[in-house]
Amino acid sequence: MTLLVVGSVALDSIFTPFGSTADALGGSAVHFAVAASLLHPVKVVGVVGDDYPVHELDRLADRGIDWSGVEHATGESFRWKGKYSYDLQSRETLETRLGVFADFSPKLPPGADHARMVFLGNIDPVLQLRVLDQVKSPVFCACDTMNYWIQSKREDLLKLLERVDMLMVNDGEARELSGDWNIHRAGRWILEHGPKRVVIKQGEYGALLIEAGRSFHVPAYPLEEVFDPTGAGDAFAGGFMGYLARAQDVDTNYLRRAMVYGATMGSYSVSGFGIRGFEGVTRDDVEQRVRRFVDLTHVPVAEPRP
Amino acid sequence: MTLLVVGSVALDSIFTPFGSTADALGGSAVHFAVAASLLHPVKVVGVVGDDYPVHELDRLADRGIDWSGVEHATGESFRWKGKYSYDLQSRETLETRLGVFADFSPKLPPGADHARMVFLGNIDPVLQLRVLDQVKSPVFCACDTMNYWIQSKREDLLKLLERVDMLMVNDGEARELSGDWNIHRAGRWILEHGPKRVVIKQGEYGALLIEAGRSFHVPAYPLEEVFDPTGAGDAFAGGFMGYLARAQDVDTNYLRRAMVYGATMGSYSVSGFGIRGFEGVTRDDVEQRVRRFVDLTHVPVAEPRP
Repeated sequence: MTLLVVGSVALDSIFTPFGSTADALGGSAVHFAVAASLLHPVKVVGVVGDDYPVHELDRLADRGIDWSGVEHATGESFRWKGKYSYDLQSRETLETRLGVFADFSPKLPPGADHARMVFLGNIDPVLQLRVLDQVKSPVFCACDTMNYWIQSKREDLLKLLERVDMLMVNDGEARELSGDWNIHRAGRWILEHGPKRVVIKQGEYGALLIEAGRSFHVPAYPLEEVFDPTGAGDAFAGGFMGYLARAQDVDTNYLRRAMVYGATMGSYSVSGFGIRGFEGVTRDDVEQRVRRFVDLTHVPVAEPRP
Repeated sequence: MTLLVVGSVALDSIFTPFGSTADALGGSAVHFAVAASLLHPVKVVGVVGDDYPVHELDRLADRGIDWSGVEHATGESFRWKGKYSYDLQSRETLETRLGVFADFSPKLPPGADHARMVFLGNIDPVLQLRVLDQVKSPVFCACDTMNYWIQSKREDLLKLLERVDMLMVNDGEARELSGDWNIHRAGRWILEHGPKRVVIKQGEYGALLIEAGRSFHVPAYPLEEVFDPTGAGDAFAGGFMGYLARAQDVDTNYLRRAMVYGATMGSYSVSGFGIRGFEGVTRDDVEQRVRRFVDLTHVPVAEPRP
């Protein structure tokens, strides 16, 4: 079951209270692919400029990441520079340089257009729609978005919502999109606008899966050290979609397990700068952490004495 | 197994975006007792002034709340006036009038001093210690506190921590007490200062139970309408302790279930002003909501296809 992600392939410069990194591999498609590839092979569609350290992407190819759908354009790669607050709870964008991303129009190479599982990373909803037009017979399509598109491309975003199976956003985005500060009403609003499921990421508080009449919550992994939240949401998406592709099933039970795999990948992501949190992580490590996650919310049966 | 709570019996005036209430029954001991009594009889020790609507307390007596340990003093009852922000995420204290509470020194009446389960609501740690001195053979003692005592009575609070089995605070209090913004390190700091368990309440994000080497998380109930967060933490404590008293067991499995009962009571508490969220709630309702809570985090076993 081919898994496809379309999104940014970027170079990130990140400042946190614990250190900084310059021009590190980043972007939604990269964070997604690194996480997903621990569970299932993944094809990436995106664009890089002629300054991109392509050999670093190539080094990741043996994880099962197919970068052949990444276009090489003339110009500068997409760059993002950001700074986090002392407690990593908020961040400020210092600089965004779109570079070759400004003229990006995703074209699915042969093979990618037959993908059954599709994740549309946070890019212009017009481009996300253009990807959907090219996918021939998807089983499950999910998309991300952000405040910028909610404000500037609302109509296109609403068209997109009618065509995806699931929206995956953070709580602030869900509130802004729906105009409702109550996160459960916001989730219902989204369900009323197309997707049958919505995942609302809540950072250190975990994530919610909302379906009609039923919700599921996964907490964040209890980490005593968090270094860099950048890309955690995309890693969550990668774990979520990678698990579904591996399971070849999108029924509600599998979606719930996918949430745990998503949260697991999010926990690795924040443990190092850029994609470094995944260094040395094996599938066995993942399965072990998934089991610890399940224990984290397990309510034992224990009836009171008569 | 006698359950005792010592705390404030107050009159609250609360302003929220959804309405307001004046001189409503409130205070930590009242919120605790109303919730706990759905699960187990509870004895209350506190103080009221000669202006308190005692008949309203009496009306609650048939729930199994024993108010006979509430002292009647001459003067004004404890009053709190507060205002919540539009999203109920923050609140401002408009007025605190201690009244007869200023000279309160808890004296346990016969019967209460044999309590096996004790909850020390958020009062001066010196008074909390004085209660512990009077309890003859407790099985499980838990306490709450707040930023005011953390700042002004730190030494007494640290003495108290050495003598309780569990601290139950919100995330801001845990951070302030430990001086650590990471909630899991903060929890560990607390465990290193006495109690074997700590519960960290996180409002709309649920609550964490931290024990040495193991954590448990319960989310908040997915409510589309929240009216008044006042007393939700005390109702959580009431559900938690009421369940343990009923179960007659404080092993880790029971503590986990107690977390779910706590979260359940918290969800009723926020659904109405003051204690009104509990009006008409039966033990059957509670058990039904507990089952829905268990489903909210249930991770089904579902192995991927070969």
